[in-house]
Amino acid sequence: MTTAAPRLLTPGPLTTSLRTRQAMLEDWGSWDARFNQLTASVCARLLAILNGADSHHCIPLQGSGTFAVEAAIGTLVPRDGKVLVLINGAYGKRLAKICAVLGRTFSTFETAEDAPTTAADVDRLLHADSRISHVALVHCETSTGILNPLAEIAQVVERHGRRLIIDAMSSFGALPIDAREIPFDALIAASGKCLEGVPGMGFVFAQKAALAAAQGNSHSLAMDLFDQHSYMASTGQWRFTPPTHVVAALHEALLQFDEEGGLPARHRRYASNCQALLDGMAALGLRSFLPAAIQAPIIVTFHAPQDPRYRFQDFYERVKARGFILYPGKLTQVETFRVGCIGHVDATDMRAAVTAIGEALLHHTSIHRT
Amino acid sequence: MTTAAPRLLTPGPLTTSLRTRQAMLEDWGSWDARFNQLTASVCARLLAILNGADSHHCIPLQGSGTFAVEAAIGTLVPRDGKVLVLINGAYGKRLAKICAVLGRTFSTFETAEDAPTTAADVDRLLHADSRISHVALVHCETSTGILNPLAEIAQVVERHGRRLIIDAMSSFGALPIDAREIPFDALIAASGKCLEGVPGMGFVFAQKAALAAAQGNSHSLAMDLFDQHSYMASTGQWRFTPPTHVVAALHEALLQFDEEGGLPARHRRYASNCQALLDGMAALGLRSFLPAAIQAPIIVTFHAPQDPRYRFQDFYERVKARGFILYPGKLTQVETFRVGCIGHVDATDMRAAVTAIGEALLHHTSIHRT
Ligand SMILES: Cc1ncc(COP(=O)(O)O)c(C=O)c1O
Ligand SMILES: Cc1ncc(COP(=O)(O)O)c(C=O)c1O
Repeated sequence: MTTAAPRLLTPGPLTTSLRTRQAMLEDWGSWDARFNQLTASVCARLLAILNGADSHHCIPLQGSGTFAVEAAIGTLVPRDGKVLVLINGAYGKRLAKICAVLGRTFSTFETAEDAPTTAADVDRLLHADSRISHVALVHCETSTGILNPLAEIAQVVERHGRRLIIDAMSSFGALPIDAREIPFDALIAASGKCLEGVPGMGFVFAQKAALAAAQGNSHSLAMDLFDQHSYMASTGQWRFTPPTHVVAALHEALLQFDEEGGLPARHRRYASNCQALLDGMAALGLRSFLPAAIQAPIIVTFHAPQDPRYRFQDFYERVKARGFILYPGKLTQVETFRVGCIGHVDATDMRAAVTAIGEALLHHTSIHRT
Repeated sequence: MTTAAPRLLTPGPLTTSLRTRQAMLEDWGSWDARFNQLTASVCARLLAILNGADSHHCIPLQGSGTFAVEAAIGTLVPRDGKVLVLINGAYGKRLAKICAVLGRTFSTFETAEDAPTTAADVDRLLHADSRISHVALVHCETSTGILNPLAEIAQVVERHGRRLIIDAMSSFGALPIDAREIPFDALIAASGKCLEGVPGMGFVFAQKAALAAAQGNSHSLAMDLFDQHSYMASTGQWRFTPPTHVVAALHEALLQFDEEGGLPARHRRYASNCQALLDGMAALGLRSFLPAAIQAPIIVTFHAPQDPRYRFQDFYERVKARGFILYPGKLTQVETFRVGCIGHVDATDMRAAVTAIGEALLHHTSIHRT
């Protein structure tokens, strides 16, 4: 048992470092030059992570990640465009829902939750429908933790002369993505995921020419990335009040990202977290939902224990009492729960989490029996 | 001169208490019951401030204040509605811009920046156009600091059987608004204004029956307040990742709001800030833009000094070096600057700010002469 705040083993908000949170102890004037420098530094550091400074703009946006995804689709898909949405989980479905609400024409291609979309699928679908202007893809589908083959799909989309929109919310900063090799019009992520900032803002990497052609597309004032970028480019300021403390925390988190050794080091730590988790859980007899080959080192879905007395809520409380916050499953067909590998945690934490999970399962019958 | 972080005399982000910022030193799981309780407590406290628990829902929304304003219009004005937008400054103009981008039919009524909209104007306009379903009004127009006569206008709107949407961004929490006396469909404010939280979320008080009838109106997934509320009502959770640290800071700020004595005490402090500012500036020979009768105790617009060498940016830097951050003017016709009276500051701070301003003007000719 522990009395310290529990560690979050969730897909975000996740555990951040004290140093990152302490960066929020100062108030910042949103009109002040010092804050503008902070924003500029954040954007430059984000672009550097994917080698995108030549090809893309980084456009920060207030709100959660979904706001940034909706803004990217609303701004970059013209009103007469058509989007092919690739789905193998809840976040792919959300892309389709956004297209529907925004009134953009779209079609969907859905595979099972444990089956990545393949480049061959996309090739066939683009051959069959010349009206498709954009393809929308979730890189790591966080609802299971499955990794979709981004590089291969991006190549096919480019060969067909179509444009790619990537929801990289849970992968950016941890899995390598190089804008010099992977062509895309938009890639979306947020402050509170693998960069280990606090939640409260998203950002969109928008291909420069695509953004320049996007004036007037947006269905929304607040989510118009063309306007958001123009205003920031000419004034250095956010168009509407920025979440100043969230920006300061992200800046501090990005300094630590570099100090750790950038993306390769972050990737290594998460991969080692994931391995420690998988090994430990296997020893407890808990099976992961995905085969290793398509498991991203971001979040792992586990089958619920076979015990008929298992209830996620009880299990959750018992693990929480031992210092770790888990996440519910998001599958409709199978009873599962999820454990995140991301955030300011290491393999030692993961092993401690496994111990806590083991204890929670042992004590299963002792409380909350109904 | 001071080396401490400068105090923000701006309309937000503004100066917060250390206690409020320290509430951000903890990480919160967005799925966890403790965080759900935090959100519920914030909403209940917000509703209590305007006696709205019986008549209205409080719907928090990720993003800046403008996001919440756009969400309120997009959700509560049906697609075949017509909005009369009352304008006497930049935020009134923004309401009209939102209607235009969202494709809602609207007309505008614009008065001079130092002339409040009157109830008689609204009466005449509603008589003349029966298609108007909604009236949109800025309570305190922060671009000058002018106060519009909310109670009188609300009465006229109700008498005509139309619905009222109030942008109370810079007044909520400081100026009395009682939902039992003032009928409205939506009132919008944000975390980082008179409640003295940090920026990063807005909230909308939506009249219960109006919200219940609003399903499917929204142009946006992320800004759909009907969905946002339904999801929260049934799960206790935010629909998309909440800005957890911002919510925790707002909760802590609301505890301090109550401890201070609630809205009457907050109003008194800001009124005393405003008076100290006006008195001090008058003694320096600096004239305020608005007559006292229509000046809200929120932010004061001052005419720029007559000195031909005056440049806002230089002046700003000199005042900042003395510990205070001012705000530029937002008028197109007259050269002005603004000083906020809101945030975790008192009359002593305001007098110190006046001293800093006086010194900055005295030293005006000594640097940056070109
Ligand atoms: C792949 C993916 N897309 C979108 C989102 C939505 O982000 P948010 O909850 O911040 O709106 C998430 C959140 O975890 C995600 O993992
Ligand atoms: C009256 C009013 N409305 C709207 C806004 C916009 O809020 P935000 O900048 O948070 O989007 C402000 C901001 O100061 C305001 O004062």
